Amino acid sequence: MKLDIDTLMQARNLDAFIIFGHGEHNPPMYYFTGGGHIMHATLIKRRGDAPVLFHGDMERDEAAKSGLKCIPFSKYDYDALFEKAGKDTLLATAMRCELMLRELGVSAGRVGVYGTYDLGWSFGVLAYLQKLLPNIEIVGEAPGASLIVRAMETKDEVEVERIRAMGKLTTEVVAQTRDYLTSCEVRADEVLLKEDGSPLTVGDVHAKIRLWVAEKGGELPSGFIFAIGRDAGVPHSGGTPEDLMRLGQTIVFDIYPAERGGGYYYDFTRTWSLGYATLEAQELYDQVLEIFNKLMDNFDLYSPFKDYHRMTCEYYQSKGHKTPLNTKSPIEGYVHSLGHGVGLNIHERPFSGLTSGDDERLAPGVVITSEPGLYYPEKGMGVRIEDTLWVRPDGQIEKLAEYPYDFVLPMKMWRQR
Amino acid sequence: MKLDIDTLMQARNLDAFIIFGHGEHNPPMYYFTGGGHIMHATLIKRRGDAPVLFHGDMERDEAAKSGLKCIPFSKYDYDALFEKAGKDTLLATAMRCELMLRELGVSAGRVGVYGTYDLGWSFGVLAYLQKLLPNIEIVGEAPGASLIVRAMETKDEVEVERIRAMGKLTTEVVAQTRDYLTSCEVRADEVLLKEDGSPLTVGDVHAKIRLWVAEKGGELPSGFIFAIGRDAGVPHSGGTPEDLMRLGQTIVFDIYPAERGGGYYYDFTRTWSLGYATLEAQELYDQVLEIFNKLMDNFDLYSPFKDYHRMTCEYYQSKGHKTPLNTKSPIEGYVHSLGHGVGLNIHERPFSGLTSGDDERLAPGVVITSEPGLYYPEKGMGVRIEDTLWVRPDGQIEKLAEYPYDFVLPMKMWRQR
Repeated sequence: MKLDIDTLMQARNLDAFIIFGHGEHNPPMYYFTGGGHIMHATLIKRRGDAPVLFHGDMERDEAAKSGLKCIPFSKYDYDALFEKAGKDTLLATAMRCELMLRELGVSAGRVGVYGTYDLGWSFGVLAYLQKLLPNIEIVGEAPGASLIVRAMETKDEVEVERIRAMGKLTTEVVAQTRDYLTSCEVRADEVLLKEDGSPLTVGDVHAKIRLWVAEKGGELPSGFIFAIGRDAGVPHSGGTPEDLMRLGQTIVFDIYPAERGGGYYYDFTRTWSLGYATLEAQELYDQVLEIFNKLMDNFDLYSPFKDYHRMTCEYYQSKGHKTPLNTKSPIEGYVHSLGHGVGLNIHERPFSGLTSGDDERLAPGVVITSEPGLYYPEKGMGVRIEDTLWVRPDGQIEKLAEYPYDFVLPMKMWRQR
Repeated sequence: MKLDIDTLMQARNLDAFIIFGHGEHNPPMYYFTGGGHIMHATLIKRRGDAPVLFHGDMERDEAAKSGLKCIPFSKYDYDALFEKAGKDTLLATAMRCELMLRELGVSAGRVGVYGTYDLGWSFGVLAYLQKLLPNIEIVGEAPGASLIVRAMETKDEVEVERIRAMGKLTTEVVAQTRDYLTSCEVRADEVLLKEDGSPLTVGDVHAKIRLWVAEKGGELPSGFIFAIGRDAGVPHSGGTPEDLMRLGQTIVFDIYPAERGGGYYYDFTRTWSLGYATLEAQELYDQVLEIFNKLMDNFDLYSPFKDYHRMTCEYYQSKGHKTPLNTKSPIEGYVHSLGHGVGLNIHERPFSGLTSGDDERLAPGVVITSEPGLYYPEKGMGVRIEDTLWVRPDGQIEKLAEYPYDFVLPMKMWRQR
């Protein structure tokens, strides 16, 4: 949480940090501003002090909405710096950055750098800054374990409510999709038909899902998966647009919309079989649902996340499937890890893979996915069930959006003979 | 154009460059791959040689679609590097980067770095790489004038066709918006009504525009402007969602969608007044259209873009308006510059401001906007007209999408008394 930032800075021996970039589609900046259509800005935080947002003059109002202390770039005479820098934009910007750091009392020590932004600009500015302030050490960090990612790992209640709102949007789109699919007419060869009588394709459904998410005000910045048959058995496949929608095949629908502007995500999966299911698919589904429910009963405050991944592997192995525990990089059976944290990044700490850290735990405030699955691409099927869960401060594990777990969806205008 | 890259590298004395980041929402990478859902990859180009795309094994198919020479990261034993690096991810990645550079024969000289990506990771990796290869000099560049931006300044025909396709999408959405607005019922106080009889707000129209763009398969990564009255007079305002839609007020509709995944943009503006226009607004409109048409008649191959901005200032001054030529940062009259290049960035070279370079010219292959406007926020009005234009290799200036220039839009169910 943001409250942990100073402690995390101390643990890394960081005296300050800088975030570059826009207010949107830039998780570290968004984390502090809460969003807002702010063009290129610079946030600086000195350990022990509140963060300060430096911004263009035009964006005074948007910057103020963040509730942060704001200083317009115009406080510094960029034109004079530009002349002094021999008209070198990067040097002039570094000189302004030096003034900003000095203003906050930072002229020595270790300074972290974060953000998603133009690398040529950033590397150029930082290289000059390092020369201008030889007593600071600019520190890069791997994004998987950076200060910001560690702070983001636990969410405060404001963040959880934003994720919950995306859960509502997500399950509404899923319900809309289900309603649309089950209302379709069905041809004699079990292919679904559109209103105009032509076959319904996976691509048609993709377009509708995109539309419904946009209609409700969400974004799909990382895409989504709606895949049938063999593709449902390949967790990486988004679905082949030309595939026809048919009865009796597994459909994996994994949807992860975010707030518009690159904000908080929700992550959700259901697997369906329209009209009827094959015995083999039903058996897979029952196993996935059984371990899904067992995990829900067993999640426990402060336990390492990977323990539940291991529990899932062990359950599947008892049913005769390959898993990462008995097979290196399996391509059928259980082929991924149980889940991951969700927030301003679709995948963030804590992770659950066998090699993830002992410190990646179900700590209070963590928001994670639980998404056990089974995949048999050669048999043309795959199953996954996923909800997004909040580890509440009181230790309860709360599902952030409810949605039914039916596998076979009855078709409104078709009956099995 | 991509064909100019080696010449541009020579002019900058660059021996090689590296692009980090994803295949989407990352203009430098997109420029070479042409798009594609490629997660973190690294592109390296040595001067005189074709670029090489290094990618994760899972993304073999998407990488291959780029038509580039592809090498999977798995060619290098990352696990061994990770151990050798004392489990330091950034150092191990830098070591792999060193192997990749050496593989392409780069072990000395000036190496540029481009892309939009995580700064902590990039700075950390590049700082190590600089130590591993002391004979290279890593070079940052200001994005406004970087090698890639300079190459992007002129478009090849494949790029122009992609921009043209976005122009088609854009004008279709504009036509849909016009059709919707002019079909609304109108209350006695000249407020437009929705189907349910409640007042139509700017926010309602925003939602419809977003929906229609999504429906046609486009994205609005940089937002858009649909603003009425006073907001139409503030070029920076996107429109206030709570504002009611009314007759007889200027509406500025500036829409700049891109291909999904952060691809090529189109940029377009029309100004409308529903039902009727005030005399004052009509006069502004006539002046904007007159200079717009005059510019279209005068655009000439190889002329500096800023000459046309100056021509626009001079025309407006003759009509008694403030402009950047006679006023520092005017807030009414003509308050911005004439236009900018459009491509994988919504704003890119060439620029047209008074201080832009003599080398920012209407060279063959350049795609620019022409968008003269007049703004009087205190009078509650603003006007802008904008099309996206291609300077063809034969020297003709071609509008990339046709759309009428009517100002007053007759309402289908309302007549002026």
